[in-house]
Amino acid sequence: MATLLKGAAVADAINERSKADIPALAERGITPTLAMVRVGSRGDDIAYENGASKRCDKVGVKVKSIVLPEDVTQSGLLETIEDLNRDRLVHGVLIFMPLPKHLDGEAVRRALLPEKDVDGITSGSLAGVFTGSGEGFAPCTAQACIEILDYYGVDCRGKRAVVVGRSLVVGKPAAMLLMAKNATVTTCHTKTVDMPSITKNAEILIAAAGKANALGAEYLSRGQTVIDVGINFIDGKMCGDVDFAAAEPVVGAITPVPGGVGTVTTSVLVSHVVEAANRQNI
Amino acid sequence: MATLLKGAAVADAINERSKADIPALAERGITPTLAMVRVGSRGDDIAYENGASKRCDKVGVKVKSIVLPEDVTQSGLLETIEDLNRDRLVHGVLIFMPLPKHLDGEAVRRALLPEKDVDGITSGSLAGVFTGSGEGFAPCTAQACIEILDYYGVDCRGKRAVVVGRSLVVGKPAAMLLMAKNATVTTCHTKTVDMPSITKNAEILIAAAGKANALGAEYLSRGQTVIDVGINFIDGKMCGDVDFAAAEPVVGAITPVPGGVGTVTTSVLVSHVVEAANRQNI
Repeated sequence: MATLLKGAAVADAINERSKADIPALAERGITPTLAMVRVGSRGDDIAYENGASKRCDKVGVKVKSIVLPEDVTQSGLLETIEDLNRDRLVHGVLIFMPLPKHLDGEAVRRALLPEKDVDGITSGSLAGVFTGSGEGFAPCTAQACIEILDYYGVDCRGKRAVVVGRSLVVGKPAAMLLMAKNATVTTCHTKTVDMPSITKNAEILIAAAGKANALGAEYLSRGQTVIDVGINFIDGKMCGDVDFAAAEPVVGAITPVPGGVGTVTTSVLVSHVVEAANRQNI
Repeated sequence: MATLLKGAAVADAINERSKADIPALAERGITPTLAMVRVGSRGDDIAYENGASKRCDKVGVKVKSIVLPEDVTQSGLLETIEDLNRDRLVHGVLIFMPLPKHLDGEAVRRALLPEKDVDGITSGSLAGVFTGSGEGFAPCTAQACIEILDYYGVDCRGKRAVVVGRSLVVGKPAAMLLMAKNATVTTCHTKTVDMPSITKNAEILIAAAGKANALGAEYLSRGQTVIDVGINFIDGKMCGDVDFAAAEPVVGAITPVPGGVGTVTTSVLVSHVVEAANRQNI
């Protein structure tokens, strides 16, 4: 029976840390503020926006929702971002991706100031994750994985860690953050040969394959700590990238889906906004 | 008896590729130009400068050597870099690192334009390596490792690759470049536990530990391809990070030291200058 690494307690702890910073900022007349830029009305985006807004409210972070029409021009979108870059009352900016096809996501990524990039999409943030320089912010989901390990006292130092997936939002940055914590990190992906032999050998396993129940019993071994980043749906029921029923009797500890990594992500986002407000007002 | 992966042939092939681009640029009045900025007179820097200058000459790349006094001020150095950023006749800039202690290397790194950063030190270049976006240029030594694998027809796809070392000039970028070639990459470092069990399992091994003969027989296994990035000296004799005498009867192929990776690095640098000239004159 694996220990369940529930996200709620981790999120609470992060929120408390964020809240603790609010009074000192308030005394100086600063309210940490997140601008969320959404183009169109995708259900996913709206759901995330609502969740993030609630979390911001509870912590004491102000939210500015900017909704642009589905057919906004490239220059219209870039102007919005330039305005937010200049706005001293906005500390963090989240832009919902992917953008509609007629817009150039790369140009948008380049336009945003790294110091306001609380979701880790700019070159500055990604270089910061790669180098450990502290520039910008790590992608929230990748950092959420590490926050869970930290909260539950999993020491990464010298451990064999395996990350399944090499996306820029989770896999690659998670690998860098694990390496910064002195784990020996292997990254697996769709071209990996005999993946089970590699994941079985992991002491810490981060599953970010983006495929429902992709990691079954043959990928797992006794005592592992498993962080399941997957959010998939089978017949309307949410499940992760790890076959939970197969994993639970075997591994040492595992995050549930739902109630695991996803629960922590918005708290990391909010903590980035507070941190951005601190950094911008030294 | 391992196959020797000599660098000279690889360097020649890269130089030929670079040379092939020169006439078309010349027709448009463009001479690819590298500015090398050196503070003080460290022997290492001067040796590299001489080597790179010769290589540039042979390919048809112009060199501009800028030597600043050991006690140059931070603003003096930054002004030099700003001038080079603005100079449309300079396509690539190499700044010798580390700088004297009174200078802020981080600020210098931030000042340089990524499009002129032929040595891969800016956030733009490092984010480019991390994301595969093509922004900036990869650090030359890391790319030299990949050029050697390519030249000798070593297919990385699906292979187990292990990189020993996690520096920003070699280990980390080499891991990202290997991953971009679809290898399954593990990065080892000083905090790795039982490193031999990991390196032995590699099909491709890149040694960038920075320690003479650190990888002996117990780290190696039959048939491996070994790229030795180390440049160390024992009793005045150059040696790599791999114990060559122990490796040579065991592994499938290995780069010699000297005559391996080091031989390729300046050719990669020169190719970056030519590429920068192309990109800046589309």
